[in-house]
Amino acid sequence: MSDQQGPQPRAERARRVADTLRQQITSGAYEQGKLPDERVLGHALGATRNVVREALALLGDEGLVIRRRGIGTQVVTAKYGHGLERLTGLAETLVDHGTVTNEVRTARVVPHAPKAVTERLRLPDGSEAVHLERLRSLDGRPLSVDSTWLAPDIGRPLLDLDLAHRDVFDLIEESTGHRLGSAEVTVHAVTAEPDTARLLEIPAGAALFAIDRLTCLADGRPVDAESLRVRADRFTLHALVHRGPVPPRD
Amino acid sequence: MSDQQGPQPRAERARRVADTLRQQITSGAYEQGKLPDERVLGHALGATRNVVREALALLGDEGLVIRRRGIGTQVVTAKYGHGLERLTGLAETLVDHGTVTNEVRTARVVPHAPKAVTERLRLPDGSEAVHLERLRSLDGRPLSVDSTWLAPDIGRPLLDLDLAHRDVFDLIEESTGHRLGSAEVTVHAVTAEPDTARLLEIPAGAALFAIDRLTCLADGRPVDAESLRVRADRFTLHALVHRGPVPPRD
Repeated sequence: MSDQQGPQPRAERARRVADTLRQQITSGAYEQGKLPDERVLGHALGATRNVVREALALLGDEGLVIRRRGIGTQVVTAKYGHGLERLTGLAETLVDHGTVTNEVRTARVVPHAPKAVTERLRLPDGSEAVHLERLRSLDGRPLSVDSTWLAPDIGRPLLDLDLAHRDVFDLIEESTGHRLGSAEVTVHAVTAEPDTARLLEIPAGAALFAIDRLTCLADGRPVDAESLRVRADRFTLHALVHRGPVPPRD
Repeated sequence: MSDQQGPQPRAERARRVADTLRQQITSGAYEQGKLPDERVLGHALGATRNVVREALALLGDEGLVIRRRGIGTQVVTAKYGHGLERLTGLAETLVDHGTVTNEVRTARVVPHAPKAVTERLRLPDGSEAVHLERLRSLDGRPLSVDSTWLAPDIGRPLLDLDLAHRDVFDLIEESTGHRLGSAEVTVHAVTAEPDTARLLEIPAGAALFAIDRLTCLADGRPVDAESLRVRADRFTLHALVHRGPVPPRD
């Protein structure tokens, strides 16, 4: 990150500076949303102006900052952190950031759900299931496309509820009268194909989180199998992870 | 996902089928690494052959599968799941999958570490710090580029240890005689700029995880600030997340 590090190419130094700046931006270091000029940044980061400029271009490509001649570099939007400590719906997570609204694109009973779905929800082969697809926005700006398959006894009552404004978790708990149990979450990073890019209003090829989440009732029955595609320029995942004791050897 | 869902464009149906297949592949549904033919997949997924073909093309673009005429569709490589339940190093995580080796690209004391680093490690302004950069490979195939800044008392002893074959966590614990405490982890999804793409042997523009991890000793002192860039075609993050009780209202 500094010239003391020898003959590494400028691209590498720019990548490191970009990593540091991304970390600072995400943790709220630039509260007014405006970054210092290149000279000041270079001093703080131990890098030349050319390296800083190249790093800012990388963050511009990620959609994290925008650079305007005569104005300088602005953070486009704060990234919203989604903690992995506790299972929460999007509206619940972002309650302090704004209002989540959902464009309900699909909400229906599918008479013979695909085998891949019935297996995941441990339903009999050929069983019906409820399918939802929602484009979710924060304060009117698209954030994620969520495809949700629900066990029929859990999903059917939801079709009459307020899918446009509320989290599915919240609706399930209201409808069943019971708190949900836990979820297995798998996080992928992918790029947006043109269809998803259009829905989320991002360039094709931009980075996305693709999140699989299988949520169970408190008794362990899986009832909610989701595929979420979340804009990575507006969203991070975070966790506080403990080292714990030395695990036993087999 | 099925034709029963009305007039959604094929691209959307393909995206949903791709989401389901990615989930199945990641969870090990195709153990031999070979997917059934398009007709069989279509039946299981409630989709037409054209939609299945388009979904497989999307997964091909992600680097998850490869399609060969006359052979069919193969999973390129299993994705390795990194659990967020416990703080582990890469070699420790992948101990059952193969051998991690590290090309040490930088390993040195930086006399005046950048302010961004000293602030994060709570070191005095202008303090020295130890910088490591390692290209990490599993069984000879690149997996991540890790840039690591260490507090000097923790980092200096590591410069004489086996950085080419061992996790930094492991080395810190050996060197200090104490187990690490916890880490704050922030996960971004980004695309690979040309320099990182070259190092990781992936196409420029491919999806990557960019992970910031600040690791503390058991007494809470932050000693290890890392930026990890991890190939998303070979790696997922997973967690078991609990719903917990209703949180108190402010």
